Amino acid sequence: MNSAILLISCSDQKGITAAIADFIYKNGGNIEHADQHIDYQTNTFFMRVQWSLGDFKIPGDSIKDSFLPLAENFSMAWSLHFDSDRPRVAIFVSRHTHCLQEILIKHSQNYLPCEIPLIVSNHSDASRNAKEFNIPFYEYSKNPKNKIEVEKKEMELLRREKIELIVLARYSQILTGQFVGAYPNRIINIHHSFLPAFIGSNPYGQAWSRGVKIIGATSHYVTEQLDAGPIIEQDTARVWHRNTLDDLKREGQDLERTVLSRALRLHLERKILTYNNKTVVFD
Amino acid sequence: MNSAILLISCSDQKGITAAIADFIYKNGGNIEHADQHIDYQTNTFFMRVQWSLGDFKIPGDSIKDSFLPLAENFSMAWSLHFDSDRPRVAIFVSRHTHCLQEILIKHSQNYLPCEIPLIVSNHSDASRNAKEFNIPFYEYSKNPKNKIEVEKKEMELLRREKIELIVLARYSQILTGQFVGAYPNRIINIHHSFLPAFIGSNPYGQAWSRGVKIIGATSHYVTEQLDAGPIIEQDTARVWHRNTLDDLKREGQDLERTVLSRALRLHLERKILTYNNKTVVFD
Amino acid sequence: MNSAILLISCSDQKGITAAIADFIYKNGGNIEHADQHIDYQTNTFFMRVQWSLGDFKIPGDSIKDSFLPLAENFSMAWSLHFDSDRPRVAIFVSRHTHCLQEILIKHSQNYLPCEIPLIVSNHSDASRNAKEFNIPFYEYSKNPKNKIEVEKKEMELLRREKIELIVLARYSQILTGQFVGAYPNRIINIHHSFLPAFIGSNPYGQAWSRGVKIIGATSHYVTEQLDAGPIIEQDTARVWHRNTLDDLKREGQDLERTVLSRALRLHLERKILTYNNKTVVFD
Amino acid sequence: MNSAILLISCSDQKGITAAIADFIYKNGGNIEHADQHIDYQTNTFFMRVQWSLGDFKIPGDSIKDSFLPLAENFSMAWSLHFDSDRPRVAIFVSRHTHCLQEILIKHSQNYLPCEIPLIVSNHSDASRNAKEFNIPFYEYSKNPKNKIEVEKKEMELLRREKIELIVLARYSQILTGQFVGAYPNRIINIHHSFLPAFIGSNPYGQAWSRGVKIIGATSHYVTEQLDAGPIIEQDTARVWHRNTLDDLKREGQDLERTVLSRALRLHLERKILTYNNKTVVFD
Repeated sequence: MNSAILLISCSDQKGITAAIADFIYKNGGNIEHADQHIDYQTNTFFMRVQWSLGDFKIPGDSIKDSFLPLAENFSMAWSLHFDSDRPRVAIFVSRHTHCLQEILIKHSQNYLPCEIPLIVSNHSDASRNAKEFNIPFYEYSKNPKNKIEVEKKEMELLRREKIELIVLARYSQILTGQFVGAYPNRIINIHHSFLPAFIGSNPYGQAWSRGVKIIGATSHYVTEQLDAGPIIEQDTARVWHRNTLDDLKREGQDLERTVLSRALRLHLERKILTYNNKTVVFD
Repeated sequence: MNSAILLISCSDQKGITAAIADFIYKNGGNIEHADQHIDYQTNTFFMRVQWSLGDFKIPGDSIKDSFLPLAENFSMAWSLHFDSDRPRVAIFVSRHTHCLQEILIKHSQNYLPCEIPLIVSNHSDASRNAKEFNIPFYEYSKNPKNKIEVEKKEMELLRREKIELIVLARYSQILTGQFVGAYPNRIINIHHSFLPAFIGSNPYGQAWSRGVKIIGATSHYVTEQLDAGPIIEQDTARVWHRNTLDDLKREGQDLERTVLSRALRLHLERKILTYNNKTVVFD
Repeated sequence: MNSAILLISCSDQKGITAAIADFIYKNGGNIEHADQHIDYQTNTFFMRVQWSLGDFKIPGDSIKDSFLPLAENFSMAWSLHFDSDRPRVAIFVSRHTHCLQEILIKHSQNYLPCEIPLIVSNHSDASRNAKEFNIPFYEYSKNPKNKIEVEKKEMELLRREKIELIVLARYSQILTGQFVGAYPNRIINIHHSFLPAFIGSNPYGQAWSRGVKIIGATSHYVTEQLDAGPIIEQDTARVWHRNTLDDLKREGQDLERTVLSRALRLHLERKILTYNNKTVVFD
Repeated sequence: MNSAILLISCSDQKGITAAIADFIYKNGGNIEHADQHIDYQTNTFFMRVQWSLGDFKIPGDSIKDSFLPLAENFSMAWSLHFDSDRPRVAIFVSRHTHCLQEILIKHSQNYLPCEIPLIVSNHSDASRNAKEFNIPFYEYSKNPKNKIEVEKKEMELLRREKIELIVLARYSQILTGQFVGAYPNRIINIHHSFLPAFIGSNPYGQAWSRGVKIIGATSHYVTEQLDAGPIIEQDTARVWHRNTLDDLKREGQDLERTVLSRALRLHLERKILTYNNKTVVFD
């Protein structure tokens, strides 16, 4: 356990930074990173602060209790993390495996600080990738009839495996409101367009028909409304008349894998706060 | 008159390129640029070819007649231009003058091969710019009641001034179908978003509310359907949580002026063909 | 005078943030922006903090004295600024006026918080721009023989006009070490390449000969070594074989003006710290 | 064998396009793609033309002979290819395997039309990747003493395996002039900087020390002069003061793999012509 990370939001008031910095300093911590932001429209204060625990007098499992009075004093919404945390992440994928593959490779290179104890799919295609990286693979076919029942199984599996975060790495099934509601700001999706353009299915087909000169990819937290959750990261690439629909899909895959793995890393490094269906990303 | 430019589209067939290249060669022309494209979905052939007229045996004003039999043989849609053409362009603008300013500056630097005999506005703000560059300025206030009547005046002015192309450089009024119909593929608009996201008014406000991480600008030909015509050029820029709505507007202005002046230049250089509500841009 | 800005650097130690935040809070200030960075290679701490002066108990002209003990305690290098400051900026330009023009336009739109009391040039081309914006214009021809003497005149002018910052907006003359030494981190240059590629004269010619697929522009503080000072901002654009050298120059101008005006704005907003011939840019 | 591709360069003269298009048309071919370029500085004409062989009267292995008189008439440098060609490519790699991995994955997705019959390395790290994709792996340690001797072995292997193209996918050894001379425009390297900045070893270290705000990657044909061959493709990414040297390396890897695989694809699709140490890329 090397350093602690606090994510904080509250109404902006005088003295917040002083109180937090004082808390850390008085207890022997050294601030390694600190970033803050005020949204003046809503008068909301956001902060991410990370400090070394080397000389910190409060043991890791007591920090929450020690910080609580200060947090209550400012009516903070807050969460405490440690950079040694290894959140347990489940990857959901359908037939396109390029995003899964990217995550598994970057994970194996220690670029993504998490555990990946399971992969779920409604198809068998990704079983090859799961096998290559020795990760248990669960194939659950879904159709309109068995959807509710299968989701129950999936949620049970997620609970059993103590999954903290779900990554939809090109997962083609829409999750029910019940499923989504159980993981607020803990399901990350990649959508293969620059949202809010081309919501829903076949965004490359839509983009190609519209004749856009730029394609994009968007990673966002999943909410009940389709492709409308808080955007974490986006990127775009130029296309032109010579690009066929297949070219768009192929070029787009490179965007998708990059955008999703960046978003996942930002989440795992505890750099994201959400409010008003938007994100503050302290990178 | 230095070189001629042919823009051609027709059903793809054997021998088109050979026939055109032969026509140019037999008459003493030397091809300076040639670009072609086949859309395999619709089996449509597109070509832009430019050749020097120095030794060309056919006088400029007879080329059309000489080329006609060949064009009819392949059932071409086609147009002939000369790089010495200086199309007469009218700029329409409302209160935001940054796009107008960019066009006037780039025009004064000989970057935009056209004449700009008039500027039309529903406000007085741009009169200063018009004056600086010695361009006649027409202020026509518009409201729902007088719209039809004012458009009549505008169209009369455009006819009288032999305007070939209209540029909407942040013009806030929606043109009627009658006006648009009179200038097919000859009205270029700049929309301050990456279309098709954020159609209609206040796109930066929409973008800010949606929490996008990328903003954009789109230049397109105007059709009767709002912000839905063939896209000529787009560009994007990254934004983040620290950017206020005003930042987005300001950053966006730099995108808008660049995208619109690029689109205008492409049109003036006769590099754009349209089909199926899309563009082929031979740059 | 709405808010104060502190720029700080010192050896990293515990308690710096706490001490600064406490200083602001105890005296009734509310932090509006705060950003910090630690360079772990050199163990250097950097901070930019901005707070509202509305309820601040210390008058603006006493803040320096009040902060001094704290600064000495941590052996800080530091400077205090106010967001109401309007630094006096001199623009030096030669024959290419696009960067000057951009600065003057953005300045007139209140995008650049400064005064521009004078423009200096070794040519007459920019006198037109100076006149348009009612700014005194000083033409000083330079040649190897009169250089020292002319620089003396220029430096006298700068002193008389209390110039704080000099912007070389495509100024083709190399300044002497004496001149540069008089304005450490207070001369901003735009170089028309992605430094450190293509140092010196004719960078577009060099780029075209090398056959690069990307061109760039770099804004940096001027040091005695040519084109080798701390880089503030860079940007790049794609080019290809069809682009002539003239195209590169023209496309490059759009990059240059954007990069230079961004760098200038960052400096004016007191967002830049320098160390080890690099910059920390708290944007 | 679906279509033929001609790559042509010669002095610009009247009638070249007509002669080539006529050759294809007279023999029953239909042009699928055609692109041409004239470099006016050197008066050089470049062309890439691709036509369907479905109804083409000349058998594939006689096209060369049939085209020869025309080629000689215009003193062309030219080469004939077929889109069904599967050039045999050898990958050379050292310890960083991300570029190799990208090539193997994209190859397995049929994105790279070639055979990869062997991987050569001066280390054992890549043997795992070779094994995963069932590709013979040759480990040849190199040091200043055995270099000439080892290169002999390598060249023998390349000859035996009829290798047409060599890809240096982060290969840390400098090839001798003799080796390079045996494969003119047939060795593609990835250099981890935006050349010509940061030639030689440790470009990210150089970039980090210089404090650049943009990093890049460059793919080029290898010539005897280090990192100075014709540039095929480049790309860049923004960095800032918070990025450590390790961040630069990691972010850079994503650039490198993309740039190298694009360059390789362009070569395999016969879209690259070289002249004056530059490339014309007909994409």
